[in-house]
Amino acid sequence: MPEVVIDGLQINDWSREILLECRTGGIDAVNATCAVWEEAAATRKEIDRLRAFIAANADIATIVEQAADIDAAHDDGRVGIMLGFQNGSPFEDRLELVADFHARGVRVAQLTYNVRNLIGGACYDAVDEGLTPFGGDVIAEMNRVGMLVDLSHVGDRTCLEAVAASTQPVAITHANPRSFVDVPRNKPDHVIRAVTERGGIIGVCLYPVVAGGAEATLADFVAMIVRLIEDVGVDHVGIGSDCARGWGRDYLLYLRAGRREPLAGETLPDWPAWPDWFAGPADFPVLDAGLAAQGLAAGDIAKVLGGNWRRLLGEVIG
Amino acid sequence: MPEVVIDGLQINDWSREILLECRTGGIDAVNATCAVWEEAAATRKEIDRLRAFIAANADIATIVEQAADIDAAHDDGRVGIMLGFQNGSPFEDRLELVADFHARGVRVAQLTYNVRNLIGGACYDAVDEGLTPFGGDVIAEMNRVGMLVDLSHVGDRTCLEAVAASTQPVAITHANPRSFVDVPRNKPDHVIRAVTERGGIIGVCLYPVVAGGAEATLADFVAMIVRLIEDVGVDHVGIGSDCARGWGRDYLLYLRAGRREPLAGETLPDWPAWPDWFAGPADFPVLDAGLAAQGLAAGDIAKVLGGNWRRLLGEVIG
Repeated sequence: MPEVVIDGLQINDWSREILLECRTGGIDAVNATCAVWEEAAATRKEIDRLRAFIAANADIATIVEQAADIDAAHDDGRVGIMLGFQNGSPFEDRLELVADFHARGVRVAQLTYNVRNLIGGACYDAVDEGLTPFGGDVIAEMNRVGMLVDLSHVGDRTCLEAVAASTQPVAITHANPRSFVDVPRNKPDHVIRAVTERGGIIGVCLYPVVAGGAEATLADFVAMIVRLIEDVGVDHVGIGSDCARGWGRDYLLYLRAGRREPLAGETLPDWPAWPDWFAGPADFPVLDAGLAAQGLAAGDIAKVLGGNWRRLLGEVIG
Repeated sequence: MPEVVIDGLQINDWSREILLECRTGGIDAVNATCAVWEEAAATRKEIDRLRAFIAANADIATIVEQAADIDAAHDDGRVGIMLGFQNGSPFEDRLELVADFHARGVRVAQLTYNVRNLIGGACYDAVDEGLTPFGGDVIAEMNRVGMLVDLSHVGDRTCLEAVAASTQPVAITHANPRSFVDVPRNKPDHVIRAVTERGGIIGVCLYPVVAGGAEATLADFVAMIVRLIEDVGVDHVGIGSDCARGWGRDYLLYLRAGRREPLAGETLPDWPAWPDWFAGPADFPVLDAGLAAQGLAAGDIAKVLGGNWRRLLGEVIG
């Protein structure tokens, strides 16, 4: 396995067992989602809860607040947890909450989650109307404090406007090219190029393999990575597994439906099956092997599995 | 003065003095704003505070929860306070909060305040992208529980889509025709017609006389009302004074800037001057006299000063 391994996104109900899965997979650091639909107060609680969990498991886990913390986690054999948002909802309508959450350790925030919010348009909006004036202010503030802008689940137009607005490189932490599976959750080539041409990264995503399902083979997946490398360069591709471990079906309904109460008679959706070659964080070495089998050089594999994220985080969060 | 006098909107820092001004003006009921930018928790507090204030002044004020409460307020010589929102923000992203706030007495809610929210687009958005799917759900829920949809401060496209979505008549509680003063806060003729053709009302607005300033004369204002009546019918025009009594300049900044903290060195804006012929709720009789001077029949004046609001509220809130 390469020097530093970083997963661009996991959304787990964290337990010691999941931390150990990450260790088995050789993962040194992960962007760990601590807000999806929550507003500020609920997000603060979740951050406090997650920090207490990490403190209770300090022998195998640590918080990542600067890029050098990832190197230290690697040296210690611990899993570095970087606090991240999958929605701008914790910022509410209050620009000062960006700095507030940065002070609480949050280092990456996706602008929108599936549907539009006060910041901009999202991937499942019928029409994405672009970044709002408040959204532009949020990006400027994220740039100022050192918080990575994440464009996964964001609408195409808002992605382009966010890239243009940001003075720092931005990321798509967990999505695939739409040329691989043509669904709104994935990214068209022009969005991927806009992100990567400005120094950003796309983290390719395993969550059932963004909507192509569990049938995709490891060969299909690594071939997609190789095509991406050919298209945008080996310095701009990473992994964002989107592992979602430890949750019940109620949480999947929450992800889809938001904070509303369940409707009368509403049935819980089922989590999708994962590919047999990648069931969770412990399977990260499979990607190493798969990329090597495609003939990718060890140095390039190291970039894809972590080196690129490490470089970008060094630039953006310091 | 006519039988029942209703003011379509006031946004006051309520005091006994302001209630007495309303009584001096002959006002039987007013849509009283209790949320502009607040989310659910802060709005619940404000409602509790306002209810306690009304209870402490029960000799001259009462809560309006159904239209008949307005008649009772009139008979008792009390000012009926109907709780209203100027933003959908208290509903957050949780549809069930519509019924929650209805149960707390809220009977009217403007969908957006100046800038877009999760429900739809607003009057100061560069582009109004229309009602969101969540916004459609909110309107259906407001229709179901009996809460009047208010389209003041809402964007033109969202207004039209809201009218189309609503199974109940809707209102523009406080705005003027754009043909009177051409600013985004006012309404173009096609929006006014869409609202009124479906049984709704436009409440004409005195707040410095929506952006024409204090120079407008009473004759200008009543002539505008007469033109509106000619255009949409005497059953569809009311008053929404938008009186904003009792506040300091910090509150005007809050209205304009939202819940963010003041910027370094930010200066407080100044409240605009009111016309010398209408300085507050006590001046409502001036409108009666002005409309009579234009030759409007007493029965028609009664509709404009309250009868139309009474009819609409009877239909919508029950």
